[in-house]
Amino acid sequence: MKIAFVLGSSRQNGNSEWLGHQVLEGLDYTMIRLTDYNIHPITDQRHDQAGFQPVEDDYENVLNLFLQHDVIVFASPSYWFGMSAQLKAFFDRWSQYLRDPRYDLKAELSQKEAYVLITGGSNPKITALPLVQQFHYIFDFVGMKMSGSLIGHAVKPGEIQDDTEAIAVAKQWNHQLKQKGNA
Amino acid sequence: MKIAFVLGSSRQNGNSEWLGHQVLEGLDYTMIRLTDYNIHPITDQRHDQAGFQPVEDDYENVLNLFLQHDVIVFASPSYWFGMSAQLKAFFDRWSQYLRDPRYDLKAELSQKEAYVLITGGSNPKITALPLVQQFHYIFDFVGMKMSGSLIGHAVKPGEIQDDTEAIAVAKQWNHQLKQKGNA
Amino acid sequence: MKIAFVLGSSRQNGNSEWLGHQVLEGLDYTMIRLTDYNIHPITDQRHDQAGFQPVEDDYENVLNLFLQHDVIVFASPSYWFGMSAQLKAFFDRWSQYLRDPRYDLKAELSQKEAYVLITGGSNPKITALPLVQQFHYIFDFVGMKMSGSLIGHAVKPGEIQDDTEAIAVAKQWNHQLKQKGNA
Amino acid sequence: MKIAFVLGSSRQNGNSEWLGHQVLEGLDYTMIRLTDYNIHPITDQRHDQAGFQPVEDDYENVLNLFLQHDVIVFASPSYWFGMSAQLKAFFDRWSQYLRDPRYDLKAELSQKEAYVLITGGSNPKITALPLVQQFHYIFDFVGMKMSGSLIGHAVKPGEIQDDTEAIAVAKQWNHQLKQKGNA
Repeated sequence: MKIAFVLGSSRQNGNSEWLGHQVLEGLDYTMIRLTDYNIHPITDQRHDQAGFQPVEDDYENVLNLFLQHDVIVFASPSYWFGMSAQLKAFFDRWSQYLRDPRYDLKAELSQKEAYVLITGGSNPKITALPLVQQFHYIFDFVGMKMSGSLIGHAVKPGEIQDDTEAIAVAKQWNHQLKQKGNA
Repeated sequence: MKIAFVLGSSRQNGNSEWLGHQVLEGLDYTMIRLTDYNIHPITDQRHDQAGFQPVEDDYENVLNLFLQHDVIVFASPSYWFGMSAQLKAFFDRWSQYLRDPRYDLKAELSQKEAYVLITGGSNPKITALPLVQQFHYIFDFVGMKMSGSLIGHAVKPGEIQDDTEAIAVAKQWNHQLKQKGNA
Repeated sequence: MKIAFVLGSSRQNGNSEWLGHQVLEGLDYTMIRLTDYNIHPITDQRHDQAGFQPVEDDYENVLNLFLQHDVIVFASPSYWFGMSAQLKAFFDRWSQYLRDPRYDLKAELSQKEAYVLITGGSNPKITALPLVQQFHYIFDFVGMKMSGSLIGHAVKPGEIQDDTEAIAVAKQWNHQLKQKGNA
Repeated sequence: MKIAFVLGSSRQNGNSEWLGHQVLEGLDYTMIRLTDYNIHPITDQRHDQAGFQPVEDDYENVLNLFLQHDVIVFASPSYWFGMSAQLKAFFDRWSQYLRDPRYDLKAELSQKEAYVLITGGSNPKITALPLVQQFHYIFDFVGMKMSGSLIGHAVKPGEIQDDTEAIAVAKQWNHQLKQKGNA
């Protein structure tokens, strides 16, 4: 079982990242920090005669790295009640590779398992629920199992450390992942 | 700080009840098991000239008991992706007492704090999210603080004991409530 | 194509009913006014050894009448951001008949098509969205097609007649249903 | 009353655009096609000591143009059950200008009124509901009135013209806007 941590934050050492480390403490995993890569937003060419054209950026490398893993922990801050642009671009570009004959992307994705971490303010445990539903629809569309979602209340750097409920869930996931790894 | 556990299940010793006991272990609280009372559904007389008429059932006693508490743990199974009829009737009847001059119900409710427990099947951690949103709207309408919501996966009797994530949150709430009680 | 109008209101001539008549104007349909019947809430006996026991009320007659139709317009006021207790009981009791060997209820329901009308106040076009999602989950569970949902803003009697947007959709559905009927 | 149409599509003459033209037919309005401008995603500097730094792109011009209007029709395709990256960046950058002393952005936004158009596939009238909720939270945060939301079912170019229900609502909004303009 190979684990990746796909981090959509634009800040270093942010609250989403800290919460992810609680989930992954003591486990081997690949850190995929999306801001380390140049990833273009999608240009929707689904309906162009020639279809999607190759894009000169790092996305294909990131996708290939991502696809080597079985369990993915996705983390994003909630910006304006949605996921970060970096993480959204990561999913949007799936549209291109779902049509790329070199890949069988849907089949590959359907073998994976996702955990979702969201951190934010403005009553996030309610206002981020539509974002949880969006993640569910994304994973459901490609047949990927959504094993958990967790919303942490945190705005300023470090504030997540006061959300003892979120930490309790993160530790529980950590325990689950360790058990799966040993199974 | 006085705590009540308002249980909307129709079964005895069900999964919602078990999870509630994890939240409340070691604390003093009043058990309000709605099926122990005769509570009629609302008859909507908001727009009748004479307004709401007195109802011959146990609701007023239950309401008076409820109002003596500061923190309420509400628990309901998810039936067809909604709360139980018993718990819904409990809220629906608020409409009557919000218009009853003997009470200042909205002001009283706005001083209280709610925790919500839901248990069910059919991918409940996603499919019960609209129910969480409904609870939020109910509490928001009367100005009551919603301190937490928790969805447990359980259909058959006892199944909740396998939802280690839900139990972790319940124990965390128990810890929070004990700290508040001592503060 | 046989049409039924399942009305969950507790008031006569309420806003939901008025909106339903816009949808159904000029069409043959069966009016199923749930308050005309004695329908008990569910007693959850899914996990009792003996299973569900017969209930002495009108539900089976209502269910049999309902099952004779292909297209169902369900209408409910939004009470405390949920459907009326009458309509909820109608769905809850499906649990009993899904296990009744005299019926093949899931197969029958999967052949039907539903439209949903909701009317209410308190910013209903947002706050009733969780209720729309609940209807979707209910129909999805039994494989029933959900052909449309419509939220009307109306609290006082007659207020729905000012919601020109809701009326425009109702008239459009009316047009669709007439076309289907002629097809 | 000045109207703007803020279009978040990446395609020309797409379904969102077509639906927007139904809403705006016969009215004076400013077209703000976000893809005509170079708009950077947000760099979250809320917690940097120096705060947000000036960004060399077209956003400030677009924002100034936008702020001259009273009623805004926002349109976006639903990509992966969220708004387009272009429209999301438009909102995300508000975070920067809410902290810019040259503006009183929240006060200005609170005077405006928004309509939302979404088009997409994959059962959009259900699966885009979380996106409607997200728009609501965005507008609610800045005190902007949300006057309507409309989800059109359309994937391929032109397909929106078959969604007679969406067109009926668009025409109704057109009528409302003309009445407001004359008031």
